[in-house]
Parts: sequence; structure tokens; C-alpha cells
Amino acid sequence: MSGKRIEFWYEFASTYSYLTAARIEQTAGAAGIEVEWRPFLLAPIFQAQGWNDSPFNVYPVKGRYMWRDMERLAERYELPFKRPTRFPRNGLTAARTALIAADEGWCPDWTRAVYAANFAEDLDIGDPALLAGLLETLDQDPGRVLAAADQVSNKQRLRTQTERAIELGIFGAPSFLVGDELYWGNDRLGDAIANAALG
Amino acid sequence: MSGKRIEFWYEFASTYSYLTAARIEQTAGAAGIEVEWRPFLLAPIFQAQGWNDSPFNVYPVKGRYMWRDMERLAERYELPFKRPTRFPRNGLTAARTALIAADEGWCPDWTRAVYAANFAEDLDIGDPALLAGLLETLDQDPGRVLAAADQVSNKQRLRTQTERAIELGIFGAPSFLVGDELYWGNDRLGDAIANAALG
Repeated sequence: MSGKRIEFWYEFASTYSYLTAARIEQTAGAAGIEVEWRPFLLAPIFQAQGWNDSPFNVYPVKGRYMWRDMERLAERYELPFKRPTRFPRNGLTAARTALIAADEGWCPDWTRAVYAANFAEDLDIGDPALLAGLLETLDQDPGRVLAAADQVSNKQRLRTQTERAIELGIFGAPSFLVGDELYWGNDRLGDAIANAALG
Repeated sequence: MSGKRIEFWYEFASTYSYLTAARIEQTAGAAGIEVEWRPFLLAPIFQAQGWNDSPFNVYPVKGRYMWRDMERLAERYELPFKRPTRFPRNGLTAARTALIAADEGWCPDWTRAVYAANFAEDLDIGDPALLAGLLETLDQDPGRVLAAADQVSNKQRLRTQTERAIELGIFGAPSFLVGDELYWGNDRLGDAIANAALG
């Protein structure tokens, strides 16, 4: 291993994080860079800024633009995209599950599956039954995994990870950390990878 | 003329617009595309969203990131950059002057000069004496131009242009309009040019 690495900070309700999650492993891998997947929650960060909803709902003009921008970018990346009938969806259980998945080595697959459900298939990723079905497609035991995700200690891990995001100056998703350099937005994936490649 | 064109909407207090203003004429010209320079004011748009200051000041974590991002991008584009000791500066008179400059064919030079003063030299672009000096460097008569900029009819033109920006769904700067497609942010200059090149 070269030891070159990039931290990918994401929130399951984040539209632009879907675009990154679908691409980052291939992009980073081609540059010999290891991706560390860092699910966190944006809601506490947004609430601290006075928003009780996605800024794309709080500021509808910006939201309208974002949906069109997503269509264009998904087309460019040749990714399926369907504007969700509900936005944002609740990614809490999916994020807790991602921590379990990271322990066990299937976090990238899990993350991509959840994003695809949310933004390509318009499914409710806040619904435990939906998540159980996704786990089965990954050959994971839904009962075991969801119970582990729901443990008090695991809930605390997600809170701790979100606090770490705040300490790092993260205010949106996706964000990338390479050494001390923070990058915000799917648009910065290439820059972050290029920096990580410097080692 | 091919008739291919792009509208470049900008506000003189906008940091990222500086990066675009310095590059757009060359980038568009290389693709055979004509740039239409559209100065407008962000303050009325921000005020409608409840902000009485730049969002980079309203949300300091985002502001801190923006200044670092500006440093990185200016370095990449090989543009001089100095974080202004005061932000945002008042671009009202500069924008009114830009409308006169557009009538007379020197708007690109004016726009670049004002941005360089603000973001490369840390000068107060709200100061009429500073603006007069910039006009002299462009061989323009400061007395004549600033009087024309200050006419009631010209002030109304800038208001009308800002209302037009709102109608177009513009919520930040720089923005680009190509046909019916809106693009937001210096990061989207390449995409907007590519679309304009399709004709």
C-alpha cells in the first residue's frame, strides 16, 4: 500500500453525495488512493445554522437549480437519476448501518445501494423494511445488522463522527479531507484526489 | 459571427466572480463564443433570503472554507489574490459604471480592473476616488463616466438588470445563462461554455 488516502464525508440525504459515492472508489483506485468512508449527519450542522430542513428547501430558488444541476451531472456521469418525491429522506438508520458495514468491509457497497435507492429509484431509505431488503441484496442478515446498528454504543459512534465533522469545519456534503485540506462538493472530488496523489 | 453566446452574470463583491471575470473572455473566445457581461446586485437577492450580509459572513464556517478555496483556485489559475481586509465591499457604483462601460465597449476591462482592485490589491472599490483612478488607467474621463453612472436612468437600469436576474432564477454569482440553461458558480464556467459551443 502506498498509504495515500482520502476521507469521504457523506450524508445519505445529500444529492450531490450520490454522484460522488457512485464514482469515488473507481476514481481514487485509478490513482492508487484508499478511500475512507465517513458517514455523518448534516441535520445537527444545519440546525446550528438555523435550518430545520435542507437548505434546498429553505431556499427554493437554489433548490430548483440544484435539481436541474443534478439531472445534468447524472447524465454526464451516466448515472441513473430520478428526482425523489420526498426530499430530504431520513438517512439516520442507513448511516448507523454504514458504521457496521465499515467494520465489516462492505461499506462502499452499502453506501452505493442506499444512494441508488434514494436518488435513482425514489425509495424511502428511512423505512427499515426497505433497508432490510437492501441488506439482503448484499447477502447480509437484516436482523443481525439492524440490531447492531441500533445499539446505544453504535448510535453514539455516529454522534461522535458528526462531532468530528464539525471539528473539521465540515458544513455540507460531500466533503473530502486530505491531510489538513478540506474540500467541499462533488465538484472538488478531482482536486481532492489530485492532492491525495501527491502523498 | 457564429452567434454563439453566453451571459455572464456577476456582482463585484463576489469572490468567485473574480476568478471567472479574469478568465472568461479567453476561455469563451477560444471556443468562438461571445460573452455578454451582466453586472447585477446580490444584496437585494440575499435580503429576500433573510441575509443582511454575505452568506460567507452569516455562516462563518462556510466563509473560512471559501477563503482557503479561493487561495487554492487563484494559485491554479495563476491569478494574484489577497484576502480583502474588508468583505464584502460595496460594488454599487462600480456596477452602475459597468453599465456605462458596456454601452461604450470597455466593460470587460473595467470589470477585470475592479475585481483586481478588490481581490488582488485589497483596495476599497466602494470609494469613488479609487474608481476614478481605475477609470484613468483605462483612459476614461472619471468626471464624465461617474456622472453618467450616477444618473437616475442609469441607476434604474441596474435595478432592472437585478430584477431580470431574479426572474432568471439567479441566486448567486457568478452565474451563466446559455439559452434557457442556468449555471451557477465559477466551477460551471467550462460546462456553460461547452453548452454554448453547441450553438
